[in-house]
Amino acid sequence: MALTLYWASGSPFAWRVMLALEHKKLAYESQLLQFDKQEHQSPQMLKLNPRGRVPVLKDGDYVVFESLAVLYYLDTKYPQAPIFGSTPEEAGVIMRVICEFQAYAEPSLQKITRAVFSDQVADHLESLTDAMHVVAREARTIEGRLSKEQWIVGANYSATDMVVFPWIQLLRRALDKPIAAELRGRFLPMETNYPALARWIQRIEALPGYDRTYPPHWRQPRQ
Amino acid sequence: MALTLYWASGSPFAWRVMLALEHKKLAYESQLLQFDKQEHQSPQMLKLNPRGRVPVLKDGDYVVFESLAVLYYLDTKYPQAPIFGSTPEEAGVIMRVICEFQAYAEPSLQKITRAVFSDQVADHLESLTDAMHVVAREARTIEGRLSKEQWIVGANYSATDMVVFPWIQLLRRALDKPIAAELRGRFLPMETNYPALARWIQRIEALPGYDRTYPPHWRQPRQ
Repeated sequence: MALTLYWASGSPFAWRVMLALEHKKLAYESQLLQFDKQEHQSPQMLKLNPRGRVPVLKDGDYVVFESLAVLYYLDTKYPQAPIFGSTPEEAGVIMRVICEFQAYAEPSLQKITRAVFSDQVADHLESLTDAMHVVAREARTIEGRLSKEQWIVGANYSATDMVVFPWIQLLRRALDKPIAAELRGRFLPMETNYPALARWIQRIEALPGYDRTYPPHWRQPRQ
Repeated sequence: MALTLYWASGSPFAWRVMLALEHKKLAYESQLLQFDKQEHQSPQMLKLNPRGRVPVLKDGDYVVFESLAVLYYLDTKYPQAPIFGSTPEEAGVIMRVICEFQAYAEPSLQKITRAVFSDQVADHLESLTDAMHVVAREARTIEGRLSKEQWIVGANYSATDMVVFPWIQLLRRALDKPIAAELRGRFLPMETNYPALARWIQRIEALPGYDRTYPPHWRQPRQ
């Protein structure tokens, strides 16, 4: 079946799926949508996903969206290079750490990155500082895991790494902006604050096919 | 292996797992924790789950928590009576509808039920009314699915039903309280507003073992 991925540059949710497709060496047609042209809300896209969100994966006539569901579908359909572990026990931990990340880290990450990219840091500095505390605490737990193993869960690159990684990259990009100066202290530079996480980022950046997943608009000089 | 479930009466997250255990006909030791005695935060429980949340499932020496991860572990370890479908395509839809429910309905359900059970409706009536709009919209989508099929995804009882059902029961219980009078109009009575959902609730209530999953403190007369 022919795979088509509908995605947008810089969406951490879409990025997860691209990492999985590269890891599984699955060829796919790339449909890059422009958020600023509202292409994810076009009638054609709303027909695929009524919520108008990316990523959306088409596999022949079959359509799946919500990034975790796409990862899960891909792993069930194309089990080679498994990303949800090779035993029930591994599967449980991989899914558990994903659920924890989504429940406890993602809301704060979303709050911080949205505020930075929409130039609204000063108005919400207190609640953003709280959100950075939450992120720092969750990152500390992941740092602990990565100081013992190469990947977040166990010895293999898994769906957990794919779920977490794009958010860390997005956070770093946000915190690098001058407007985020007062927020970044607890987190950057990662090499000193989170050395195991920093090495893990380099490990993922060195994976085959990584370059194809990198948000194209991040390569352009910042305006 | 011997299964032990740590849970609390009325936790929708724990209830999901109990529904799965009954469906798979897995015997388990029940460890009912009392929230009001902070038993979920005891040193013994924090050792199993540092976040001090339920459900926690022990399977021999193996420990898993976060309800979706527990469901996933159970289905991978004990595949009989599958709850994540029998094809990759079904698996994808089951997980997708779960992800949508968690992302778009659960935050509002949590807000409403917390406010009602802590007697804080009047102070937040406007935002709770907004939350009820969100819930009503998401329920409408599920009603649409259930008006075509017996279960939320396809022809079989699945993890999606187990994830959604406890929240609907908790919401009904909250909206039945006198304090929730101004919130309930769009939702209750379900028989007229959401007839397919109402029939689906009866279908689950009639499943073997359902009685064992019913929150024990809900059987007591209300104070």
